[in-house]
Amino acid sequence: MGLSSDFFKRLKQWQDFVNQGLAKLVPVLSGQASRLTDAMHYSLMAGGKRLRPILVFAGAEALGERPEPLLPVACAIECIHTYSLIHDDLPAMDDDDFRRGKPTCHKAFDEATAILAGDALLTHAFRLLAHEDLETLFPAERIFRLWRLISEAAGLFGMVSGQMADLLAEGRPVSREELYFIHHHKTAALIRASVLAGAILCGASPAAEKALSDYGWKVGHAFQIVDDILDIVGDEKTLGKPVGSDLEKKKATYPALYGLERSRQEARRLLEEAIQSLQVFGPSADFLRDIAYYILERKL
Amino acid sequence: MGLSSDFFKRLKQWQDFVNQGLAKLVPVLSGQASRLTDAMHYSLMAGGKRLRPILVFAGAEALGERPEPLLPVACAIECIHTYSLIHDDLPAMDDDDFRRGKPTCHKAFDEATAILAGDALLTHAFRLLAHEDLETLFPAERIFRLWRLISEAAGLFGMVSGQMADLLAEGRPVSREELYFIHHHKTAALIRASVLAGAILCGASPAAEKALSDYGWKVGHAFQIVDDILDIVGDEKTLGKPVGSDLEKKKATYPALYGLERSRQEARRLLEEAIQSLQVFGPSADFLRDIAYYILERKL
Repeated sequence: MGLSSDFFKRLKQWQDFVNQGLAKLVPVLSGQASRLTDAMHYSLMAGGKRLRPILVFAGAEALGERPEPLLPVACAIECIHTYSLIHDDLPAMDDDDFRRGKPTCHKAFDEATAILAGDALLTHAFRLLAHEDLETLFPAERIFRLWRLISEAAGLFGMVSGQMADLLAEGRPVSREELYFIHHHKTAALIRASVLAGAILCGASPAAEKALSDYGWKVGHAFQIVDDILDIVGDEKTLGKPVGSDLEKKKATYPALYGLERSRQEARRLLEEAIQSLQVFGPSADFLRDIAYYILERKL
Repeated sequence: MGLSSDFFKRLKQWQDFVNQGLAKLVPVLSGQASRLTDAMHYSLMAGGKRLRPILVFAGAEALGERPEPLLPVACAIECIHTYSLIHDDLPAMDDDDFRRGKPTCHKAFDEATAILAGDALLTHAFRLLAHEDLETLFPAERIFRLWRLISEAAGLFGMVSGQMADLLAEGRPVSREELYFIHHHKTAALIRASVLAGAILCGASPAAEKALSDYGWKVGHAFQIVDDILDIVGDEKTLGKPVGSDLEKKKATYPALYGLERSRQEARRLLEEAIQSLQVFGPSADFLRDIAYYILERKL
């Protein structure tokens, strides 16, 4: 077991495909509101590794479906992810000056522009989910399910609640249940929705859908644990932000509650279980398997 | 010509209907993220007059359709409107402490909670637009058109661009074209989308759709001009915020560019034209006509 030999090549191909999609599907305005789309594209193109959109493609591939038609969905989810980073970095939230080695949106522009760029990215994500090509290619009832999946994963049933709980947990001891709630909502919900998007649009069987959902939750939790670990032991250049910033902000993290060694074990266990969830699939799910391995080494 | 005798009664009935809808369709969470939904409901229930959702109903009524099934759409648009107010009031944006006589969301809670409450309201709006009842009642292709209408009116093709342009125009002279851009995007786009939502879902004829769209643009522009006028001559108790705050912030306003008298004339002219747009409709459009009259007196 280990990474497929062409994994990095495939990763790069899909990253390029997402980048081209974002350039095509997120408009650039001229005139009075050009600053808005400048800020949106600044953050969209600030070096994201495109994990979530790539999971959209990998989920479709596992089902034996062509991933390319899912491009508007993949870009919509990356817009949602990017908006969440812009708002999380704001002074009133995590107050971060750098992300991926570049000034955060409110540093490169200003706070008001960053708030609006986030708002516009979130709104545009739903414009992309109503893309004319999706309407042509997929049955309407599946598109409705996709809308519900993503609006729930991104909103008060998911990511935004996770961020609220995360902020409220700062600077005080949290229980294991509280930490699980934060990871589950803040990170895992949107990652799981990404993996599941293709299954819903392509009409996967209930068993296949369940497998991808399980994989998505486990990869989502593992990803956040690895993220927390890297904040302690990572290298500043790779992280693109100061090491130890969670500690400094007294963030609720997995290593703070369980220690580094148990955190590593838990991430490994979750990723092994994620791969086990994929047993219903043959080699078509190899890219999903590779992504799980890769998250443990985590340059994604 | 003048307001129908039962206008205020009908207005109140629809306001109550919207308020009940919001209470039913926007969840209240318990536990770690309860603060999020507390803040959302605080702003949703802070005395809004429900102009936009009522326009959704009035648009359907003009077509001879039952407005009640449009409740999720009406509530979605009110969620979008409320999110935009919460974010506009933030210290980095308009920095307002009061709205409708109550502390703004970031004053009643805090900035981070207000940012997240806005994000969650916007996301939940799209969850409501994918409401199961809409899927049951209306043909899918109309719902897709509605999604595109609203995501465009609220996002970078509409409201968010208008707010960006408004902020960038602060403190400097603006041209008439710039002011038109701001009003068109910041205010008129979502008001027009509200009037048009029912037409799109109920399958209005192109002529009826055009009539409602024209009405919506004109009412939208008139509404913003009246808003600008009221900021100068209004009464603080009715406004719920200090009079003259636009002047103080050197906001681009219609009276600043054209003077009060010409602003009043322009609002009147736009509202007369809005009513003329409704000529294709019989008495079924009387509520829309009344709303136009009423905006001139503007307690909405």
